[in-house]
Formats: sequence, structure tokens, C-alpha cells
Amino acid sequence: MSTTGVPGLSKSRLEMLCDGIFAIVMTLLVLEIGVPSHTEIHGDEQLARRLLDMWPEVLSYAVSFALLASFWFAHHFEFSFFARTDRRHIWINILFMLAISFVPVSTALLGQFYRYRLVVVVYAGNMAVAGLLLFWNWWYATRGGRLTVEGVPERVRKAVSVRLLTYAMLFALAMGLSWVSTAVGLAVCVAVPVVYIIMQVVPHGMDAPREGVPEAPRGE
Amino acid sequence: MSTTGVPGLSKSRLEMLCDGIFAIVMTLLVLEIGVPSHTEIHGDEQLARRLLDMWPEVLSYAVSFALLASFWFAHHFEFSFFARTDRRHIWINILFMLAISFVPVSTALLGQFYRYRLVVVVYAGNMAVAGLLLFWNWWYATRGGRLTVEGVPERVRKAVSVRLLTYAMLFALAMGLSWVSTAVGLAVCVAVPVVYIIMQVVPHGMDAPREGVPEAPRGE
Amino acid sequence: MSTTGVPGLSKSRLEMLCDGIFAIVMTLLVLEIGVPSHTEIHGDEQLARRLLDMWPEVLSYAVSFALLASFWFAHHFEFSFFARTDRRHIWINILFMLAISFVPVSTALLGQFYRYRLVVVVYAGNMAVAGLLLFWNWWYATRGGRLTVEGVPERVRKAVSVRLLTYAMLFALAMGLSWVSTAVGLAVCVAVPVVYIIMQVVPHGMDAPREGVPEAPRGE
Amino acid sequence: MSTTGVPGLSKSRLEMLCDGIFAIVMTLLVLEIGVPSHTEIHGDEQLARRLLDMWPEVLSYAVSFALLASFWFAHHFEFSFFARTDRRHIWINILFMLAISFVPVSTALLGQFYRYRLVVVVYAGNMAVAGLLLFWNWWYATRGGRLTVEGVPERVRKAVSVRLLTYAMLFALAMGLSWVSTAVGLAVCVAVPVVYIIMQVVPHGMDAPREGVPEAPRGE
Repeated sequence: MSTTGVPGLSKSRLEMLCDGIFAIVMTLLVLEIGVPSHTEIHGDEQLARRLLDMWPEVLSYAVSFALLASFWFAHHFEFSFFARTDRRHIWINILFMLAISFVPVSTALLGQFYRYRLVVVVYAGNMAVAGLLLFWNWWYATRGGRLTVEGVPERVRKAVSVRLLTYAMLFALAMGLSWVSTAVGLAVCVAVPVVYIIMQVVPHGMDAPREGVPEAPRGE
Repeated sequence: MSTTGVPGLSKSRLEMLCDGIFAIVMTLLVLEIGVPSHTEIHGDEQLARRLLDMWPEVLSYAVSFALLASFWFAHHFEFSFFARTDRRHIWINILFMLAISFVPVSTALLGQFYRYRLVVVVYAGNMAVAGLLLFWNWWYATRGGRLTVEGVPERVRKAVSVRLLTYAMLFALAMGLSWVSTAVGLAVCVAVPVVYIIMQVVPHGMDAPREGVPEAPRGE
Repeated sequence: MSTTGVPGLSKSRLEMLCDGIFAIVMTLLVLEIGVPSHTEIHGDEQLARRLLDMWPEVLSYAVSFALLASFWFAHHFEFSFFARTDRRHIWINILFMLAISFVPVSTALLGQFYRYRLVVVVYAGNMAVAGLLLFWNWWYATRGGRLTVEGVPERVRKAVSVRLLTYAMLFALAMGLSWVSTAVGLAVCVAVPVVYIIMQVVPHGMDAPREGVPEAPRGE
Repeated sequence: MSTTGVPGLSKSRLEMLCDGIFAIVMTLLVLEIGVPSHTEIHGDEQLARRLLDMWPEVLSYAVSFALLASFWFAHHFEFSFFARTDRRHIWINILFMLAISFVPVSTALLGQFYRYRLVVVVYAGNMAVAGLLLFWNWWYATRGGRLTVEGVPERVRKAVSVRLLTYAMLFALAMGLSWVSTAVGLAVCVAVPVVYIIMQVVPHGMDAPREGVPEAPRGE
């Protein structure tokens, strides 16, 4: 039941669409891993070698899964502050979803061509664009308390903005670094989600921003 | 908990099915983009050329994503007026979903054969049929306040109907124009979602129809 | 919030899983339609001929979509009587989902081999099994009011049972008839969903069974 | 509406993401079953032989579907005790989802290479890892009543832990046994879900652990 007074555009269906797209993209990634056919394999050793050769595809899959999960987590976190949505907010989210749903393509490219600079640039670029759109999502919705419950304190608004922009900028950095060395650009792309997840699960005393901010009503 | 007195057919499961189908179709589009295999590529230049050659597939994907998002948005908007569903309404929605789930096929055709008149006609036809079904959905549900909360004012009912029909008619027009020139038909198909989205996000003083219309109860 | 007193197994997550599987299966069907590549086509006529040759695949897709929608509708209808679930009920539903998720395979077979008796038998058999499991779902849940709100009147219980069994039996009949003539078996498979949907949307005065039966609480 | 006092991270969106991933993985399995093309088949007998040759793929699909359903069931069961989530809990669940979404790959491998020891080890290993992560999920959330409603009695906590660990250990055992005999390892992988499901649906007087434990509030 709506308690926000903004008629017609419900936050819950937008969340449902986004969660659906995240779930599907995270699962489709696995389809890009090509399984050999039993007609091309003769003997244990050949199979073992063939499976070991799949490592770039399996690693790309795991890294993209972790990256998508971190975007899902941040999206989830943002929405916990929002009480409603509006037209522009919906379209910002759809642009974000367009970037997210492109990840299987850039992941498949990475699995096939991880040695090629161009492909590392495409991959890091995809993530940088998704990060910028997630920042825009936050900036738009919290500006003047537009879509939040009672207005997010400026301190919290800035702290979250800095984090989101940092995340996007690290991938822009990876794009730049891959012109110097493809391997370094690639390493940044792999390191970012790993560090992010470690920072999420290891206590580090920097989690304060949420404190004292009322939660958005749910089930609306 | 139902508050509408119509037993047995819940609006929420229909929304869940539709949102699921939209999310999947929007994500499956990306599978139609064929990623080259590393065995066929030798050297940076060849890869760059090969990736540039993918532009019709990438563009078809982006246009179809935008079109599907606009249909999802309009479906979402319609349902915000509805308080319940009934058998016929469910089957109108299923026909609409049949048209929506065909979009990956017409998009793949467009990505491969955008120069062929026949394929532009199929693509525009798919969208025109989806638009007409969305109009039918609205017309059926609002007729005499059949499925709405307290009845939608006739003025609002007509304003929304005109918009939905216009959307469908633009694609019918694109079908016709592609007999004159495939390029023109194609241009209309690309322009329609772009203009629609711009009209959604730029303030233009034509947003009145919702005013004063009670919102349907949610979570039912 | 649970009001049923049966702890631990919520009806809503089971519905969510089932709706998700239905949405995905209905959308995956379309992936079985093979789109030609632009490298194999030269000229308008060849493309037109090639697209016309796709008719068995497109028709199989539309028929399977309608069949799946009718199963979703009936599942939805059954669940509107249920107030809770239990272990066995969950596993009956999972078996039903196994039959539903096999539909893309039998549909792809039908699209390729509609002239072969064996494939019509497989297709009709898939639907007959799904129908029987849906009947079992109903029979188990309503037996002695096991999972229903206040107990379904015996009259209603039987009327719904007869319908569900009839649906399953028509596909068993199609299996039998295809031993006589593949075309007749196929015709029954196509006719059943068409007639079912027409009976849903045309008023025919046989809709009484629901009357007077309390609706299950939702959102639980 | 939240009643738990833990702001920002809702249990319901995590459930939605997980149910979405389960639904998609369970459905994608079927895509790994390769349907022959009508151009390679001539005559009824050849088709019959070709369809019979698909048995390892169909069986792998059915076994994986049952295994995934059992993991979904256990996940569902665990969450019925939880009232909230936190960062680490979300990332444990995402790791679990990573293991689950890898199942289509190990299933496809099994369908192609069920005679190869290495593939049985990969398959059983995938399930063992998923089982261990599900145990971790439970252990973490119930430790000191961290995420549960009023704290789960130690007796219940241990009983569920033993079951989850046993499940994981059976697959570790299957990994070990396949070094002795591939067939035995494979048999254990097939037997485990069958026995598990039978134990779920046949009354056996061992279902007590839930008794007296308050259910988590839903819809939060």
C-alpha cells in the first residue's frame, strides 16, 4: 500500500525488473563457457588438457559474477534509501540495466581474447559506464531528498557518492592502464571486485554512513 | 490480502510473470550478438575490424532494449490504475507477452538483414502488434471501470488511449514506409523509442492525465 | 506474516520459483527458432523463402507458448485456493516444474520433426504428464482441506478435478491417435489449447465452481 | 515494513535474487540437451535411435534438476529461520549462487563425458562446494542468534548443521569413490538426491527440529 503520495510508479516493480535482469545476466555468463563435445575427445589426458584450457573462460565468468554481484549489492544498498521512484529515475535505471545486460558480451570477449588490449578496454569500459550510471542513480534520487524518505544527510550523501565514483574511476583507470600494459589493466579489473568484497566482509570501521538514516518503507 | 472482492485471480502473480518475461527477453537479446572465437582472429587489427563489424547487431540490441523498456514502462503505468484482473484480461496480457517474447527473433533478423525490406517490415510489425495489444489491455480494463479502483475519468482514459494507439500506429507507419524505402522505415523504428524516452525525461507540461486519479492498492 | 500456523514453508517463495520457471521457459522457446545468418542469404526472394520455411518452428513456438500459458493459468487458479504448502506439496510442484522445463526440448523436436509419429508422441506425452502432475497437485492439496483456507466444498473439488484430468487425458488421447495418424495427433495438440483459451474468454455459464469459496490469504 | 531494526539490507531482495538464479539455472539445464536437426535424420528408425542416444543428457538434466531443487528447498528452509541479513551473509549467499550457477557447465560435462573419472569428480565437487556454502550460510546466520528471530535452540541448530554437512560430505565421498570406480562415484551422485527426496516425502518421524521455533516474519 502506497504511503508516499507519488501515484502510479511503484518502486517494487522496478526492483523486480532489476533483480530479474541481474539474476539472468549472472546466470547467462555461464553459457559463454563452451563445453567440448564427446566426439572430439579421446582419452583422459586429452579431456584434462581441454578442461584446463578452459581457465580463461572460467576465470572471466567468476570475475564478472563477482562484479555483477557488487553492482547488485550497491544497487540494493541505494534503493534501501529510496521511498519512491519517478520517470527519470526509471530511465536512469534502464540505462544502468542496458550496461549490465551487455556484460555477457564483454565477458565472452574477455574469455576469448584476454591478451588483446582492445578487449580489456571494452571490458573495463563496460564496468566504468555501469559504475557512472549507478552514481547518477544515487545523485539524482538523493538531490534535495527527491526520492528518499526524509532526506539523506549531506554527509551520508557525499560519502556514498565518493565511493560510487571511486568504483567507476578505478575501471576508467584500468582502461588507461591497458594502453600501457594489457596485463596491468586486466589485473586492476580482477583486483577491484576482490578488494571490494574483502572490504565488505572484513570489519574496517568505515561503515558509519548509514547510521541514523531512516530506512525506506518496504513492500510498497 | 485482497480488498477487491474478486476472488481467485491475483494481479500480483500476473505482474510477476510479465516482469519475469520482460527481464528475460531484455537479457536474451544480448545472446544474439555473436562473439568471434579466438581461433579465427590473428592480430589486433583483425579483431578491431571484426568488433566494428558487429555494429548492426549491437545497435539492434540497444534499440530493441529501449523499445522493450518503453513497453515495460507503459505496462507498468497501465497496471498502476488496475485493482484486479479477470480471465480475459489475463489472456490479453498473455497475447501481449507472446508478441514481446518474439522480439529476440525479429531483433536477430534485423541484426543480420537490416538492408532487407522484409525484415524491417517484420520488425516494425512485431512492435505494432505489441502496441495494439497494450492498447487493448488498457481499453478492456478501463471500460466502465471494469478493473480499475474507482473508475478512471473518461478524459484520462482517452488521453492514455490516444498515446498508446499513436505508439502502435507509428510502427504501422514504419511498415508502410519501408515499402517506399527500407532506410526510412528503419529510421522510424529507431526514432520512435528515442523520441518517446526524451519525452519521458524532459519536462513538457503534458503529463496531466494522472492527476486526481486514485492509485490502485498494491501488494494484492 | 504467516497466519496459517504451518511454520517454515512459505507458499510465496514456491510461487516465485514457479513463476520464474514459467517466465523463463516461455521465453526460452524462442531461442529454438534458428535465425539464418546473413552470409547464407543472397537476395530478397531467398530470404523470403527462408523465412517462410521457418513456419513449423514459429507455429510450434506459438502452440507451446499457449499451452504453457494455460498450465500457468491453471496453476495460478489452484494456488488461489491454497493457504499454505508442505514438503510433499513442494515436491509435487517440483516434479511439475521438471515436466514444464522439458517443454523447450519437446517443442524444438516438434519444430524439426513434426512429420514423425515418435516426436508427436513425445510432445503430447510431455503435456499429458504435466497435466497429471497438476491434477495431483490439486488432489493432494485439497484432500480433507489439507492446504486450503477453510476446506473446498466437495462439489468444487470434483469439478476442478474433472477439468484437470480431462485436460491431461486429451493429450493422452493425442498420443494414442498419433499411432493411427501423426496429423490427427498433431491436430489434437494444437486444438486443445485453442479450445481451452476460447472457453476461458467466451462466457459460457460453466464458471460456477469458484462461487462461495473463500480466497486464500495472499502475501504470506 | 521492517520490524527488525537492521537498516538497509532487506532479506526479501536477497531471496528474490536467489529464487531468480535458481529458476534460471534449473531451466538453462535443458538448453544443454542438443536437439538433432531435421537435415541429419532420414526415417523413423534413425530418429528413434538418435533420441535414445540422448539418454545420458536427459538423465544428467533430471538428476541436476533434482539436486538444484533440493538445494533450493534447503535454502528456503534456512531462510524461514532468518529475520534479517547482513553484509557477510549476503556475500556467503553470493558465493553459494556462484556454485549453483556453475551447475549447467558441470551437468553438460557429465552429459557428454559420464564415463570419465575427471568429470564425475568435477560434478561431485561442484555439489560438495555448494553444500558446504549452504552449511556456512546456516552456521553464520544462527551463531548466537545473529540473524534469527529469537535465537534458534542449540539442539535445532546442531540437528540442521549435521544434515547440511552430511549432504556435502556425501558428495565429497562421491569424489573419493570415483577414484576407485567412476561408476560408483556416479551412482552416489544419482542416489543422494533420490534418497533425499524420498526422505522428504515419506513420513519417518525425524522431522522434529522445527518444533517450537518461531517463524521469521515474512514480507520484510
